[in-house]
Amino acid sequence: MVNKKKIIAVIGGGQPSAREAKLAEEVGRELARQGAILVCGGLGGVMEASCKGAQSEGGITIGILPGESRQAANPCVQIPIVTGMGHARNLAVVKSAQAVIAIGGSYGTLSEIGHALQSGIPVIGLNTWSLSKNGKQDNSIIPAQNPTEAVNKALNLAIN
Amino acid sequence: MVNKKKIIAVIGGGQPSAREAKLAEEVGRELARQGAILVCGGLGGVMEASCKGAQSEGGITIGILPGESRQAANPCVQIPIVTGMGHARNLAVVKSAQAVIAIGGSYGTLSEIGHALQSGIPVIGLNTWSLSKNGKQDNSIIPAQNPTEAVNKALNLAIN
Amino acid sequence: MVNKKKIIAVIGGGQPSAREAKLAEEVGRELARQGAILVCGGLGGVMEASCKGAQSEGGITIGILPGESRQAANPCVQIPIVTGMGHARNLAVVKSAQAVIAIGGSYGTLSEIGHALQSGIPVIGLNTWSLSKNGKQDNSIIPAQNPTEAVNKALNLAIN
Amino acid sequence: MVNKKKIIAVIGGGQPSAREAKLAEEVGRELARQGAILVCGGLGGVMEASCKGAQSEGGITIGILPGESRQAANPCVQIPIVTGMGHARNLAVVKSAQAVIAIGGSYGTLSEIGHALQSGIPVIGLNTWSLSKNGKQDNSIIPAQNPTEAVNKALNLAIN
Repeated sequence: MVNKKKIIAVIGGGQPSAREAKLAEEVGRELARQGAILVCGGLGGVMEASCKGAQSEGGITIGILPGESRQAANPCVQIPIVTGMGHARNLAVVKSAQAVIAIGGSYGTLSEIGHALQSGIPVIGLNTWSLSKNGKQDNSIIPAQNPTEAVNKALNLAIN
Repeated sequence: MVNKKKIIAVIGGGQPSAREAKLAEEVGRELARQGAILVCGGLGGVMEASCKGAQSEGGITIGILPGESRQAANPCVQIPIVTGMGHARNLAVVKSAQAVIAIGGSYGTLSEIGHALQSGIPVIGLNTWSLSKNGKQDNSIIPAQNPTEAVNKALNLAIN
Repeated sequence: MVNKKKIIAVIGGGQPSAREAKLAEEVGRELARQGAILVCGGLGGVMEASCKGAQSEGGITIGILPGESRQAANPCVQIPIVTGMGHARNLAVVKSAQAVIAIGGSYGTLSEIGHALQSGIPVIGLNTWSLSKNGKQDNSIIPAQNPTEAVNKALNLAIN
Repeated sequence: MVNKKKIIAVIGGGQPSAREAKLAEEVGRELARQGAILVCGGLGGVMEASCKGAQSEGGITIGILPGESRQAANPCVQIPIVTGMGHARNLAVVKSAQAVIAIGGSYGTLSEIGHALQSGIPVIGLNTWSLSKNGKQDNSIIPAQNPTEAVNKALNLAIN
């Protein structure tokens, strides 16, 4: 691959709290500052906030869209990928990334966390899901205290 | 639709504990007794155990396979659906069901739980994941104490 | 696999000519008479006509749907598979079959013919596309003169 | 969308003739010269040749991969999108483009042509498939005599 920039996914809901949107924007900004490419689901909420942050620092943003048209991409997506595959695109969002940062999020985000962990892709969490099975905590989602720590962990743990 | 039989998904891991396999087989048996069609991911472990149970009671079993060949279906799948789409088939497994019973399971099962809840499809849990977000329990996965209760809840909550 | 019935796909457009619809219905009828399971895209036109024919002879019909709801299935689909993946479901329609019968059809049917031939699945054609490349005829689509011949060829050529 | 660059897909086989590979490289080069982003299936043959051409002129190249790993991308793909969805990724390749240039190609390419035409995306052909139905020529694939003409037609016909 010519381009050695790391690709990091930012996942999270379409209707974040104000705090989650702020976290997402700062994650996007920090990813761009550190030279990473941001990939996301291309729509609103956490996706748009993170793209906005990345764009404000000159970063590259990719949106992998569920629907039939690039017009659905948020205005800060530079490279829209149109899948026409609905939520099946969630799989492509995380598999295209070398690490995933989950911010808040609802059940779509949960499906993405599941797909990422199943594929061995590190997941860093900011105010997101925590998991347990049969009463036993599962620590696969790596917690971060703030956007900078989330980005640092994602870049350090990024797979090839 | 001619066939008014309910379609229920059984999801769970490829390498279940002995107890989970037993639960899965009994869930399959009970689904068949109550006249439901079982849909699953078509491979081994919980998928195979539940198909085995359903088949022993004369039930219909559908396996939605990730790979390129029907030969990968477990021997108790009667109707193999071959997708060639890898883990993206997880979405089709749950969306084809009117309710989902999750037994044990790992991250693939977690992705299926996320997809089901995102789609408004009820999820009944037997020894499976439990979820919380920002320290707050999420009760979307409906617990069942045993296979019969799981099947009864699934059939009662089944969407159209 | 318990069920040794052959699975044959019928593909074709949503808006067939009267003649194509009649061919599709007769293909469905003949598939059922010969004990095969019919798989299709689950919607109207050729898909519905073939399901109607199969059902009239007591055959099993599977519809692999593009959208989010089983309610979109035509009334003669007995087993609706809901993918939520749009036209990506075309791949699953043909890969689930051991041979494909194409009747009329437009560009969606053409994509299915491409996917089937790429996967080594025999395609029998009734009044459908014919292909050439660089001025040279491609004979991969096996012509049939009538529904019975199409079904016989499909069952004879069916892969495992 | 911030980036107003047009996105054009180049589709074609993994084992092109020497002439097809040369056409693909020149198409890639011309796309880059005219400021378009090239999207393709990310693997070898026509895909690699077109990426090589685009890269030699400083263009951006996106490869939408069928498998599980970005490592499968050809060395001239700058932005690998990993779908894990096998040939279902063909749909995303064409839907991500505003026009498609088909060069040679086998049945996978045919499936992509079908998906593109079904979605109303213009297809320009260089030494590729031609179609007829019931003995009547279908002229949906727009012929080009050379790479420059193909690129000009693609950019002129590009949808929004």
